[in-house]
Amino acid sequence: MKQFPKELKINQITSRLPGQEVIRDKKVILNNVAELDEANAHSVCFFENKKFLDALKKSKAGLVLVPPSFDISQKPNTNLILTDKPYVKFMMLVKTWQQLNAPQQTAYQASSASVSNSAKLGKNVWIGQNVVIAAEVEIGSNCKIEANSFIGKNSRLGKNCHLFPNVNLYENTILKDNVIIHSGCVIGADGFGYLFHEGKQQKIPQVGNVVIHSDVEIGANTTIDRSTIGSTVIGEGTKIDNLVQIGHNCKIGKYSIICAQVGLAGSTEIGDRVYLAGQVGVAGHLKIHDGAMIGAQSGISKDVPENAKYFGTPAIDAGLQKRICIAQRQLPKLLKKIKKIKVEK
Amino acid sequence: MKQFPKELKINQITSRLPGQEVIRDKKVILNNVAELDEANAHSVCFFENKKFLDALKKSKAGLVLVPPSFDISQKPNTNLILTDKPYVKFMMLVKTWQQLNAPQQTAYQASSASVSNSAKLGKNVWIGQNVVIAAEVEIGSNCKIEANSFIGKNSRLGKNCHLFPNVNLYENTILKDNVIIHSGCVIGADGFGYLFHEGKQQKIPQVGNVVIHSDVEIGANTTIDRSTIGSTVIGEGTKIDNLVQIGHNCKIGKYSIICAQVGLAGSTEIGDRVYLAGQVGVAGHLKIHDGAMIGAQSGISKDVPENAKYFGTPAIDAGLQKRICIAQRQLPKLLKKIKKIKVEK
Amino acid sequence: MKQFPKELKINQITSRLPGQEVIRDKKVILNNVAELDEANAHSVCFFENKKFLDALKKSKAGLVLVPPSFDISQKPNTNLILTDKPYVKFMMLVKTWQQLNAPQQTAYQASSASVSNSAKLGKNVWIGQNVVIAAEVEIGSNCKIEANSFIGKNSRLGKNCHLFPNVNLYENTILKDNVIIHSGCVIGADGFGYLFHEGKQQKIPQVGNVVIHSDVEIGANTTIDRSTIGSTVIGEGTKIDNLVQIGHNCKIGKYSIICAQVGLAGSTEIGDRVYLAGQVGVAGHLKIHDGAMIGAQSGISKDVPENAKYFGTPAIDAGLQKRICIAQRQLPKLLKKIKKIKVEK
Repeated sequence: MKQFPKELKINQITSRLPGQEVIRDKKVILNNVAELDEANAHSVCFFENKKFLDALKKSKAGLVLVPPSFDISQKPNTNLILTDKPYVKFMMLVKTWQQLNAPQQTAYQASSASVSNSAKLGKNVWIGQNVVIAAEVEIGSNCKIEANSFIGKNSRLGKNCHLFPNVNLYENTILKDNVIIHSGCVIGADGFGYLFHEGKQQKIPQVGNVVIHSDVEIGANTTIDRSTIGSTVIGEGTKIDNLVQIGHNCKIGKYSIICAQVGLAGSTEIGDRVYLAGQVGVAGHLKIHDGAMIGAQSGISKDVPENAKYFGTPAIDAGLQKRICIAQRQLPKLLKKIKKIKVEK
Repeated sequence: MKQFPKELKINQITSRLPGQEVIRDKKVILNNVAELDEANAHSVCFFENKKFLDALKKSKAGLVLVPPSFDISQKPNTNLILTDKPYVKFMMLVKTWQQLNAPQQTAYQASSASVSNSAKLGKNVWIGQNVVIAAEVEIGSNCKIEANSFIGKNSRLGKNCHLFPNVNLYENTILKDNVIIHSGCVIGADGFGYLFHEGKQQKIPQVGNVVIHSDVEIGANTTIDRSTIGSTVIGEGTKIDNLVQIGHNCKIGKYSIICAQVGLAGSTEIGDRVYLAGQVGVAGHLKIHDGAMIGAQSGISKDVPENAKYFGTPAIDAGLQKRICIAQRQLPKLLKKIKKIKVEK
Repeated sequence: MKQFPKELKINQITSRLPGQEVIRDKKVILNNVAELDEANAHSVCFFENKKFLDALKKSKAGLVLVPPSFDISQKPNTNLILTDKPYVKFMMLVKTWQQLNAPQQTAYQASSASVSNSAKLGKNVWIGQNVVIAAEVEIGSNCKIEANSFIGKNSRLGKNCHLFPNVNLYENTILKDNVIIHSGCVIGADGFGYLFHEGKQQKIPQVGNVVIHSDVEIGANTTIDRSTIGSTVIGEGTKIDNLVQIGHNCKIGKYSIICAQVGLAGSTEIGDRVYLAGQVGVAGHLKIHDGAMIGAQSGISKDVPENAKYFGTPAIDAGLQKRICIAQRQLPKLLKKIKKIKVEK
């Protein structure tokens, strides 16, 4: 349940939400969004999946968004809005409600923050406790840098970036506008490069950086390594989940989705609108082309063509892989049968 | 080797440990626990696995816990206690010894900590350097919040919780009693939810929270995402290892074990006493029922019944999966044989 | 592109680099290293892979290192050095250049750092903002401890160690000389050990520590757990990538390479010069012998012999595993054929 400081009357919500209204109680005050089973008389909820019909019937919600086909007699004494895609509409309402409550950010710097004299801050930048901002850093307007975060020398952030508590940017990192980075991320650590020489692993210097384009969001504890010489690049609007590893020199396109615990080895390219499901691993120096979809835990060992669906380790066409998985289950029986077959020579 | 400030005489140990004593030197002073091969004259050790008999014979330990069946002539000049399950007894002794040395915690707040005026602290709360505690947080008695940790707005901790250095709790997180969270954990970051709409990935607001019940321990750098609307829940007594990813809306039962690098996608339910071995991945919206055991690196793509043992990607019954793995090794030979077979049409 | 504060003339570079010089412009000033496609007139680049010949032709670089076999007419107006292994030579130049710019480190302690009175610091130790150094810690000469890092009680660091921002060392951790640890690492958290007893998971005390030998480098957000009683050990010169999990009691040898997201369960031993590719998982109490190479995402369930190459889950000889993978792709067709075969009983 999410409680909002700003209360809304039922007509303040219906005026924001297209749909057919079924108002049974005009006076209800709404102040939170909730799951059906935790709702109270002030909750807005949604109902879309028939699996939750029982929960709907028992729910104490003050207002429920339901599909146009919903039989309103099934929830007699509650305010309803019949609308296409109730979940999407509900989420749009949540966004609106959050913004109603959001005060305009104003410039703030916690007393314990340490900001270099040579750093340049835009308007209305918010800097939390113990934040460290090194020399020659530039931070655009309306950025929010939460507690205990570290921004290394010569990094540059665009407008409206949000670093949650304890984000670490190594030197020379570049973020464009509206980038969101969750706690524990490490952006720009040295790539993993060594040469075995004279009986030892000799470190290859990693002097490139990381460039993250606009509208990217990066989940908690994800690591993106700096390039050896040039830049590791995350393209516009790409979304990266928690605990993901992006190796040095990788180039990721636009609006791709990279789920939790994916690992990309060095110098790999990912196209636009690619989908990598959880725990996928991609070897180095490969290219996954635009629109490809890779199933969970797959191991990619060669290039993936545009719009292909791959699965398995090593990954192949997902359809074939699934047929193989089913066929394998007959393998032990099969072996017994085959042992009985005599082959004429 | 763990050195304890409090020295014990041999009789102070035997009085705490049931078993048959074989005392060869009454005067020995014990002040540490150690592995057999690093032990000194003041060490307490245990011996259970025959593999370490040589190490036992060479050990300089002052006291060794051995099984009842141990032939004491094999370790002639050393104090021994013959006891059932020497390892368990040894560990109970370590726990006791730690508590003998533990001073009662008293209220403490480091000078560099930043605690909101609206936060409420119970008795004897310990707050380390640079800790940030936001508005309206409540912290129960005897909690220990170590250096550089961040506790977001409106979070509530029960009694005796221990946050190691650099733990991050996002706003509205709830911990019940005796919860231990290791360094680098991020609890309550936004779930990974987007809608592809008008050519872009649109962020679905994540306004729920995380609730962690009593006696849960969470390993280093693990991430647990907040629910979209309701709560992501970790049940009582469940233990979670390092670098684990728990997606938004997951519900985990009681006394389950989740090993390192496991990843759970969103909205998945895990029952009580479930065991997920290392690097297991579980797809979203599934249910793993009570008592199930999942082998390492398995990928779970459908519900798992009570007490089932599953293995593989996609995971199936572990016994069948193992027979398949063995059968597969004959597959290349098999193919050659089958190619020679002519099928009558 | 990496800009160096110290500019070099062409002859200052050629004097440091063996090779055959082709100087077309003696007066060029070099001040950065870059990829061919981002280079400017002051850039040093290298060319080794024919794939980048077009990029070379278009490059504005001031100096390019090329192989001895390079046809110099293909890049007419640019300074060249013809040399064996241009990439290695280039990287040696980068290292030299970095050192030319590096001022000698001098003793520094940020005003917001918190260093225990009982801690002992060597010469020229650099301590960043908000660093916390607990009681009885010893830090060798020329160590650099960056912002927000935490060093627990009684830890000991040798000479020239570098902790990037926000590294966490639990108490009693030992680092030898020249150890590099990247941001977000957690060294010495409790091992994952419980006994299911009286219906609950009972915590086994973890009272050992972690010992990291000289010349080890550890990537971002990696976790290495303390031993139950003795020490978890990382051998000299071993390199560990990001998001790796090393369980309690593991012993890792010298000059091994452990790639990103690898997980080692407890008490496993890894030999010298072992290579574990990304996302490999290793079960507990195993031994991977010297020189073994394990393919990406493999799951190791039994000991691996010296110099063996293993692949798959459960991992077997990599050659056999690859033959199996290829054979599997024929399995669905095969099944159809076999179903038609009648076996005489």
